[in-house]
Amino acid sequence: MEIENYTRNLTLLTDYYQINMMYAHYKNDLLSKEVVFDVFFRKNPCGSGYTIFAGLEQVIEYINGLSFTEEDIEYLRGTYPYDEEFFHYLTNFKFTGNLWAVPEGTVIFPSEPVIRIETNLLEAHLIETAILNIVNHQSLIATKASRILHAAENDPVLEFGLRRAQGPDAGIYGARAAYIGGVAATSNVLSGKLFNIPVKGTHAHAYVQSYPTELEAFLAFSEAFPNNAILLVDTYNTIKSGIPNAIETFKQMKYKYGEKFVNYGIRLDSGDLAYLSKVGRKMLDDAGFPEAKIVASNDLDEFLIRDLKLQGAKIDIWGVGTNLIVSKNCPSLGFVYKLVAEKEQDEFKPKIKISENPEKITTPGCKKSVRFYDQSTNRAILDLMMLKEEEIPKDEFVAFDPINTWKKKAMKNFIAKELLVPVFEQGTQIYQSPSLEEIKLNARQELASLSEEIRRLKNPHIYHVDLSQQLWDLKYDLINNERKR
Amino acid sequence: MEIENYTRNLTLLTDYYQINMMYAHYKNDLLSKEVVFDVFFRKNPCGSGYTIFAGLEQVIEYINGLSFTEEDIEYLRGTYPYDEEFFHYLTNFKFTGNLWAVPEGTVIFPSEPVIRIETNLLEAHLIETAILNIVNHQSLIATKASRILHAAENDPVLEFGLRRAQGPDAGIYGARAAYIGGVAATSNVLSGKLFNIPVKGTHAHAYVQSYPTELEAFLAFSEAFPNNAILLVDTYNTIKSGIPNAIETFKQMKYKYGEKFVNYGIRLDSGDLAYLSKVGRKMLDDAGFPEAKIVASNDLDEFLIRDLKLQGAKIDIWGVGTNLIVSKNCPSLGFVYKLVAEKEQDEFKPKIKISENPEKITTPGCKKSVRFYDQSTNRAILDLMMLKEEEIPKDEFVAFDPINTWKKKAMKNFIAKELLVPVFEQGTQIYQSPSLEEIKLNARQELASLSEEIRRLKNPHIYHVDLSQQLWDLKYDLINNERKR
Repeated sequence: MEIENYTRNLTLLTDYYQINMMYAHYKNDLLSKEVVFDVFFRKNPCGSGYTIFAGLEQVIEYINGLSFTEEDIEYLRGTYPYDEEFFHYLTNFKFTGNLWAVPEGTVIFPSEPVIRIETNLLEAHLIETAILNIVNHQSLIATKASRILHAAENDPVLEFGLRRAQGPDAGIYGARAAYIGGVAATSNVLSGKLFNIPVKGTHAHAYVQSYPTELEAFLAFSEAFPNNAILLVDTYNTIKSGIPNAIETFKQMKYKYGEKFVNYGIRLDSGDLAYLSKVGRKMLDDAGFPEAKIVASNDLDEFLIRDLKLQGAKIDIWGVGTNLIVSKNCPSLGFVYKLVAEKEQDEFKPKIKISENPEKITTPGCKKSVRFYDQSTNRAILDLMMLKEEEIPKDEFVAFDPINTWKKKAMKNFIAKELLVPVFEQGTQIYQSPSLEEIKLNARQELASLSEEIRRLKNPHIYHVDLSQQLWDLKYDLINNERKR
Repeated sequence: MEIENYTRNLTLLTDYYQINMMYAHYKNDLLSKEVVFDVFFRKNPCGSGYTIFAGLEQVIEYINGLSFTEEDIEYLRGTYPYDEEFFHYLTNFKFTGNLWAVPEGTVIFPSEPVIRIETNLLEAHLIETAILNIVNHQSLIATKASRILHAAENDPVLEFGLRRAQGPDAGIYGARAAYIGGVAATSNVLSGKLFNIPVKGTHAHAYVQSYPTELEAFLAFSEAFPNNAILLVDTYNTIKSGIPNAIETFKQMKYKYGEKFVNYGIRLDSGDLAYLSKVGRKMLDDAGFPEAKIVASNDLDEFLIRDLKLQGAKIDIWGVGTNLIVSKNCPSLGFVYKLVAEKEQDEFKPKIKISENPEKITTPGCKKSVRFYDQSTNRAILDLMMLKEEEIPKDEFVAFDPINTWKKKAMKNFIAKELLVPVFEQGTQIYQSPSLEEIKLNARQELASLSEEIRRLKNPHIYHVDLSQQLWDLKYDLINNERKR
């Protein structure tokens, strides 16, 4: 099904300083200067031990759609007296470079490149902001969703935060990312249509209020949805009114529809969910409806869900809104975009950015990220950043911590996998995004490759991302050179 | 200038339960049932004493654009075996009701209606989610921006959070909302184009790295922008290298361009901003550049800005990214949408939603919100919710706290203003959104009507929103009736 009226031209979705740097470079004849930029982040969000990469499909769409319209040029003309020839350049602008990325759903860790861009300086500047915007948002929400799923012990979780999302796209792409992170369905109909995500939803309190009695509301709703009657039971009083009326409804529906009345249950949206779910479960069981589901919602997050589980709450399905869709306790992720090499006389020279703050010092050069798995358990052991031209170790090697270099690890009996795959080659897309189902499955498999200690919600084990000896030597040579200047 | 390729059909931007409730109502012949819904919130965001209302222009666009395409219907057909006649209804769907709202930029307070919708049940359900999504996001960011401006004592603040925003729209509409809240400019070029917001931006660290030396980078940039040379001075070492090279650049540029070299300065993006700005100011002044501006950025928010001000930082312009664009310490706002009346035999009957949680009990009936200002100071004194048909007091009356009713306030010498204005009448837009400049000015005037105690960043004075005696009586009659059931 083709999607009409949805794609937008996002060429101007960039910081104004990118346009200004492009112009300054253009004026200084640096148009053909080839550079390499890495996209990476420094800290997992939400205290997580890992991050799930998401958003690449939208990055690809964005890059393919790059095109300054006449209207865009007219707008820019009004912001500064740029030379007209610069506009001529912009009018013909398109991405002509190479881009590598890790596939969506991959678990990633601080400091390793997850996108590498090799193109000229001007193109590299223009696309920075939108790429970061897209992957920062989707990777954050995918990671948050995976934490919630982990707490829910893989019970079905429904995403229904659209009304509290930070604008339409945050709801639309947030639902996509949450699905990658493991949620079973979304309430967001547009996301359902755009990305083929299952949509779920029953009714609100106002629906119940529109009928003379709660029972009439429940019956009317169940008549319309004899195979999707999840009844919200807390409009008046959950235990005294809501659940008894739901049970009465189920009885009448079973009498009328028999085996065709399926997929029914109750939704709790306020009060003590542990207590109410246990009482509700007993009432439903005693009335002969052990298959009735209990859905719970009300400001849930991974920690509340874990507590409810620990208290034996009888909840089958979890509805999560605000805390997931804005990642409430950690609403931003910090992917950055850093220059790591520049072409000089037909050869890429590594570049470094020094900082007083040691963790802000970049790792120079054209690199690859390699993940090593234990041959017997398939668990990920560590990631190694290497120079692009280095050979990946085959049998044995010693990895060492890049800060505390005396910490060493003898590596053997491993399987090695390169993480970055080619996506654009000389401006042409050569990678086809998998379906969203495949991406979701990939995330699930990726998470399964992590130890329980890394998946822990708080204070997880720190997964190691080391540097090859050659890369380490290069980095410290460059640091020493810079310090001497 | 007409904006091409930008508007999208957001008709499916709703929760699936809205579609299902519409269907259940449709099946139960409730199509022509007229209802009234209020939009209000229960708690100001970020510990603020007020909220700035924003997003109405996008709500209007959304409502005007409502239209189920054939493709939408085809999608819905696949989600559930709805009756075909329901799709016929959807195909002809448009908003036919009345809508009132407070103008954008208005300061608003918990519990008072800021949008009132009067239409049939089905339309009222469909539009809930998108309306909440839009006003929750923009009001949150406008409020956050106004707090940052308050801390900055109205120094210019630049919004440049796009790369960390929760998707494209969060950046695009976030910049709009931040502008309403008082920022001087945005880095977001697309927002600049769409909403005519001033755009600002100079260069990044990578720009400096692309030249053999920092001085060459500065000179090249200043040559391209002799009237916008704000130089980023922390790529190598702020005090030893960045500022001296900036000063050398300013000297050469002044020599070459004289009076035409204007609007120049330095940007600090790391390190101790209080210390560096004071040292930098002295270096610039001593070199004969007292008019050079100092721009500072690096994870700033309202509290850091206030602290820097208290420490005498010499910062002229503040750049704020992540903390503003995602409202980091309070990333969601909780506007809700509640049924308050239903038509029965041609008359609207008030409806109430009871809850175990007293603050979740709704205020019933078709209401208006009235603000009372002190005649001599023009300060807002209190807001009063009244029934729509009640007459607004003219000279004197006694207001009372709706919870602690013994707390009374004798009101006199006031000017009264009704807050809600008509926006749609029988489906037709009858209100024209002011320009964004006018909205921004309105917010500024609205904030000026609040006492300093209400604008305080932490633990502000609580502004009173009371109920008229008649409305209070109605509410408590309905509560008592419900409790008797």
